[in-house]
Amino acid sequence: MFLPGTMQINAKGHLEIGGCDTTLLVQEFGTPLYVMDEELIRHNCRIYRDIFARIYPHSQVAYAGKAFLTTAMCRLLAEEGLALDVVSGGEIYTALSAGFPADKMIYHGNNKTPAEIQLALNSGVGCFVVDSISELELLEELAAAAGKKANIYFRIKPGIEAHTHHYIQTGQIDSKFGLGLADGQALTAVERALKMPHIELKGLHCHIGSQIFDLKPFQLAARVMMDLINEIKEKTGFLIEELDLGGGLGIRYLNSDLPASVTDYLEKITAAVKERAAAHNLPLPKLLVEPGRSIVGEAGTTLYTVGAIKEVPGVRSYVAVDGGMMDNLRTALYEAKYEAILANRANAPKEQVVSIAGKACDSGDMLIWYIELPRLTRGDLLAVLSTGAYHYSMSNNYNRFTRPAVVFVQNGQADLVVRRESYADLIRNDIIPERMR
Amino acid sequence: MFLPGTMQINAKGHLEIGGCDTTLLVQEFGTPLYVMDEELIRHNCRIYRDIFARIYPHSQVAYAGKAFLTTAMCRLLAEEGLALDVVSGGEIYTALSAGFPADKMIYHGNNKTPAEIQLALNSGVGCFVVDSISELELLEELAAAAGKKANIYFRIKPGIEAHTHHYIQTGQIDSKFGLGLADGQALTAVERALKMPHIELKGLHCHIGSQIFDLKPFQLAARVMMDLINEIKEKTGFLIEELDLGGGLGIRYLNSDLPASVTDYLEKITAAVKERAAAHNLPLPKLLVEPGRSIVGEAGTTLYTVGAIKEVPGVRSYVAVDGGMMDNLRTALYEAKYEAILANRANAPKEQVVSIAGKACDSGDMLIWYIELPRLTRGDLLAVLSTGAYHYSMSNNYNRFTRPAVVFVQNGQADLVVRRESYADLIRNDIIPERMR
Repeated sequence: MFLPGTMQINAKGHLEIGGCDTTLLVQEFGTPLYVMDEELIRHNCRIYRDIFARIYPHSQVAYAGKAFLTTAMCRLLAEEGLALDVVSGGEIYTALSAGFPADKMIYHGNNKTPAEIQLALNSGVGCFVVDSISELELLEELAAAAGKKANIYFRIKPGIEAHTHHYIQTGQIDSKFGLGLADGQALTAVERALKMPHIELKGLHCHIGSQIFDLKPFQLAARVMMDLINEIKEKTGFLIEELDLGGGLGIRYLNSDLPASVTDYLEKITAAVKERAAAHNLPLPKLLVEPGRSIVGEAGTTLYTVGAIKEVPGVRSYVAVDGGMMDNLRTALYEAKYEAILANRANAPKEQVVSIAGKACDSGDMLIWYIELPRLTRGDLLAVLSTGAYHYSMSNNYNRFTRPAVVFVQNGQADLVVRRESYADLIRNDIIPERMR
Repeated sequence: MFLPGTMQINAKGHLEIGGCDTTLLVQEFGTPLYVMDEELIRHNCRIYRDIFARIYPHSQVAYAGKAFLTTAMCRLLAEEGLALDVVSGGEIYTALSAGFPADKMIYHGNNKTPAEIQLALNSGVGCFVVDSISELELLEELAAAAGKKANIYFRIKPGIEAHTHHYIQTGQIDSKFGLGLADGQALTAVERALKMPHIELKGLHCHIGSQIFDLKPFQLAARVMMDLINEIKEKTGFLIEELDLGGGLGIRYLNSDLPASVTDYLEKITAAVKERAAAHNLPLPKLLVEPGRSIVGEAGTTLYTVGAIKEVPGVRSYVAVDGGMMDNLRTALYEAKYEAILANRANAPKEQVVSIAGKACDSGDMLIWYIELPRLTRGDLLAVLSTGAYHYSMSNNYNRFTRPAVVFVQNGQADLVVRRESYADLIRNDIIPERMR
C-alpha cells in the first residue's frame, strides 16, 4: 500500500499523519474530517520551487488555488515563496485576507466580471490572464477608468489536449478557454493589446489538461508556445518575455498509478523551451508553471466513521460512511477512484471486498465501488487517500449536510484551518419574508 | 416555447415571473439569481394535495426537502399543509428553525448518524424511514436511551428501477438503499422490529427513481408493495397500515419533454393499490407520495448576465455567463439539458446557435451545448428554465464563487429568501494557526 508523505502506521496499528494519530484527530475534530499533511504540502512546494530554480533560474511556481484554498493555505504559500493563481473575486479576497501579496497573484478565468476585474485592479493583482478579445476590451476600459495599467498574459489554445494517458493534437480545439492559434485569434489579440494604453502585454499562457501522466504533451505545448513567441516577434516586432505553461501534472490516486516526477516534468519542459529558443535565436523567457493537484492532492486524506453496513446477498456489501458526494464530488462527477485504509486497525488483514457508500439521498453517492478491506463494523474509521485537491474546494451542502472541518497536521500537532460548519451556518443567509411569519 | 407557471413576456419584451420584470429583479438582487415562482410552487402543492385527497382520502403528500429547502420554503409547506421529507440533521434543523411541525417530518437516509437520530428523537420527528437492519438496531438502542418510541417505515427495494424513459425489474437490486424482497431481508426486518419495545412499525416505503415519465413502473411498485403488505400479514399477523410510494415524477426541462400529469400519476398508483387491496382482502392503507422536483423544478429559473463571447471559427460560439457548475451542478453531473430565454429581449428573433459556458475554471463547466438564441452581447440577461430542484440545494463555492441569492416572486412582489453569499462568508470558518500569523 502506498502511504504518501508522513503517513505511517503507528505501534497501536493506527494510521498516523504528520505525527498525529488519526483516531485522536477524530476524537478532537469529529468526522468527516479533511486532514492535510502540511509537511508534504511544503515538501511539494519546495520540490517545485528549488528544482525549477536550479534547472531554470528565471522561473516562478504559481500554486493553482482552485485545487484547495483557505486563508491558512495562502499563508503557507507566502511562507514558501510561491506565487498564486486565482480564478475569482472570492479567491482574491481570501488571499488578501491572509496577507498574501497581490502582486504575486495571477488572475485566470474565461469570464471575469467587471466587479471582479475592478477588485483585482484596485488590489494590485500582478497579472491578468486574458482569455478572449472581449475580455481584453473590457480590461482596457476598466483599467483606463481606474487609471491603472494592467499586466497581462494571453491564454492560448496550443492545439494540444492532454488526458491522463493520452493526448490529441488538433488545429482548432473546441474549448471555452483561450485564443486559437490556427485561426489567427492569438496574433490578432496581441496586435490589439500592443495598441492599448492601459494594457502591458507581459506573456503567454497555456494549460493543456489535468491529471496528466505522459510528459510528451507538455513538451509539445512548450514548443508550440515558443514558436508562437517567435511568430509574434517576427510579425509585430514585440518580444514576449514570460511564458506560463500552466499545470496538469498527475498524482497517485491508486496504488497502480505511476505519475511522472516533478523533476522529469520540469526537465522536459525546460529542455523544450531552451531548444526552441535556440532554434529561433530567442532569449529565454521567464518561465512559470502552475501546479495545484500535484502540490496538495496526495497530502489530503478524508477520515470517515463507518455507519450502516448492508449485505446484499450474492451482490455486494455496502459499507456506508458519514460523508459522501457532499465532501467528495469527484466520485459522482468523474467516476474517480480511490484507495482507503482502515485507520483504527490499519494492520488488520484484508478479508472482504466491499463498496463504500456515502450518506446522501442520491443513488450516485458511492465513494468506492470495489475495495479489499478488513471486516468492518459500525464505528470503524476509514481513511480515503489523495483527497487534498478538488475535494474541500468542491464541497457543498447537498441534503443540508454541513461541510467538514480541515486540519493541518505536522510534527504531532494538529491545527484547525477550517472550522466544521454548524447547523446555524446552514440558515445564516435564509430569510422568511414578513408575510410568512 | 414552453413558459411554466406565471412566466410571461411583458409589453417591454422582458421576461416576467410572478408579475416581476426579470430585468428589475436583476437590478435589485444581481446575478446569478435563483427566481422561484411562488404561485407555481403553491399551485403544485395544492394539485398534489387536493387531487390526492379527492381520489384517495386517507393520504398525505410529503415534499422531498432535498430538492430545495430553505426556512421560507418550510413556512410555505406548512401553510400548504404538506408533510416534509428530511434526510439529515441539517434539514431537520432548518425545518425546526422555520417552525415546521416535527411530527410532520419523515426522516430518510441510508446512514443516519447517532447524533442525527438523537436530534430527530428529541425533536419529535414523526417517522423514521429505516434503511437497514443495522439502522433498526441503532434506532432501538437510541430510542430506549432517550425513553422514546420511534415510529418507523421500512425502506424496501421493490425490485423495480425506473429511469426517465424505461425501467428494469429485477429480483435483487444493487442499491445502497433499502431492504431486499427476494432475499427475505424485508420480512426479517419486520419480524425484528415487531419485537422491539421502542420501535412502532407504521409502514413501508419505496422509491424507484427520479425524473420518471412512464407511469407503469410506479404502478408495478405499488402492486409489489401491496403484495408485501399481504405477505407480512400472512406470515406475521401484523397489518401494515401506511404505504409511502416515494417520489420520482418527471418534469419538463426541454420543450420536447412530455411528463405525465400529477392526476394521471395519482390515479394510476391509487388504482393499483386499490386493486391489490381488494385482491388480498386488505383494508386500504394510508398512502403517501413524496414529490420534490415536481413541486419546485419548473418553478425555478436562474438569471445570468452574459459576459465574454468567443467565436471559434467553424466550431461554435461560446457565450459565457456569470454562473456555471457552482450554481448548476446537474449539467456536469448528469449532462442535464435546459431551455433558456433571452430575458431582456424575449421577443427578439432567434438568429444563432450558441453554447452557453459557465465561468468556472473547469473545462466541464458548460451549461448548454446547443441552443438557438437571438444575437447576444455582453450585459444581456439569460434565463435558464426549470432550475428549481437540485440547483440551489447542490450549489457550492468551487473556485470560491459566492452562492447566488434566491427570491420568491408572486403578484409583482419579490421577497429575498436566501441572501447572496458575501466574500466574508467564504472565510467565515477559515482560521490561520497562530504559528503562521
